[in-house]
Amino acid sequence: MSATTEVRQRILAANEEAARGLRTRFARDRTLVFNLISSPGSGKTALLEATAARLQGELRFAVIEGDIATERDAQRIARLGVPAHQILTGGACHLDARQVQEAFGRQDWGALDALFIENVGNLICPTSYDLGEDAKVVLLSVTEGEDKPFKYPAIFTRAEITVITKIDLLPHVPFQLDEVLGQVRTLRPDGRILQLSSRTGEGMDEWCALVRGRVAAKRGA
Amino acid sequence: MSATTEVRQRILAANEEAARGLRTRFARDRTLVFNLISSPGSGKTALLEATAARLQGELRFAVIEGDIATERDAQRIARLGVPAHQILTGGACHLDARQVQEAFGRQDWGALDALFIENVGNLICPTSYDLGEDAKVVLLSVTEGEDKPFKYPAIFTRAEITVITKIDLLPHVPFQLDEVLGQVRTLRPDGRILQLSSRTGEGMDEWCALVRGRVAAKRGA
Repeated sequence: MSATTEVRQRILAANEEAARGLRTRFARDRTLVFNLISSPGSGKTALLEATAARLQGELRFAVIEGDIATERDAQRIARLGVPAHQILTGGACHLDARQVQEAFGRQDWGALDALFIENVGNLICPTSYDLGEDAKVVLLSVTEGEDKPFKYPAIFTRAEITVITKIDLLPHVPFQLDEVLGQVRTLRPDGRILQLSSRTGEGMDEWCALVRGRVAAKRGA
Repeated sequence: MSATTEVRQRILAANEEAARGLRTRFARDRTLVFNLISSPGSGKTALLEATAARLQGELRFAVIEGDIATERDAQRIARLGVPAHQILTGGACHLDARQVQEAFGRQDWGALDALFIENVGNLICPTSYDLGEDAKVVLLSVTEGEDKPFKYPAIFTRAEITVITKIDLLPHVPFQLDEVLGQVRTLRPDGRILQLSSRTGEGMDEWCALVRGRVAAKRGA
């Protein structure tokens, strides 16, 4: 085994251990955890803002934001009255379970129905790092082109939920929706695919119903 | 120094060595080399297609494509009659100089005025890997939001050229162009910023003039 492979395996093993700790804690607290992953600018923060506007009175939830630099995303969420914490990774291209453990441990958020973790904007690196989540949610905006699932197969295979975002822009971009749906179904036959626009609200009911359903299932678990 | 840091430094040192070899070769051949970096779906391949349509009879150029999976991008370029080679990284989130060295060494492309290297779709990892290029070119599409330069400062600092893409979509998205221009100028005061749409052709003249000028400068160097 090369030194590089050895170090990588050690890092991933340490992450797995921290993720197990988080998963145990979230199970005990019956907190649903979604790990949101996408390219930069696919609309992760916008989806969380739209979710906050709809579910805030109904569910107790919080957001952990991951970015290389700036606290902008946590500020956007906090402005809506939702507890939010920003993790700055420095240069790292993904969040890891220890960072989430440390960030979560420092909060006094009380009992939560749901925790949304918005990962660093990147379709590749976050894929390998378990954060103790119930599901990875991958977002793909219609402006990114229909070739992306097959070009980034790992995340579209591991994400239980695929959200096609910015569907209000469909009339203005060449985007073969059927092609994307076919690719996602090939990579993750049992996955769930949603289509929505955080801006117009189209498709948000289905997303909120999914969140509600998963929160209820976790409570009953 | 931790084992992780040590391995990382060793990897980067090996990359620097390979990049120096490439740079010497490209200097000898007087081939202009641009390393195109952006999020997935910002329009790197579309820009190269639009460039091919305009400059193909005039300049001898080739394209090296980097992707995790699929040969789609090289096929798109080759369809236009431009020599193209696809590097598949497996899972890696960036190209490295050795991959480019190996790919370039296997080609029989003859004398080239320009070589465009389209990196893996990622605003983070490709930043640290010199590929022997004359300039890094970062692309940002108007659909990605105006907060990106400050959120991904390393690439916007290191890229000598910033290309704002998909400006035909400006009427349909909330994108504060002035804010982006300000951020880029803060990070890279001497950088060049272009705005274009590969689809409508707006701004392509300026891009082609820049390529032509840089090719002429390298020939005369």
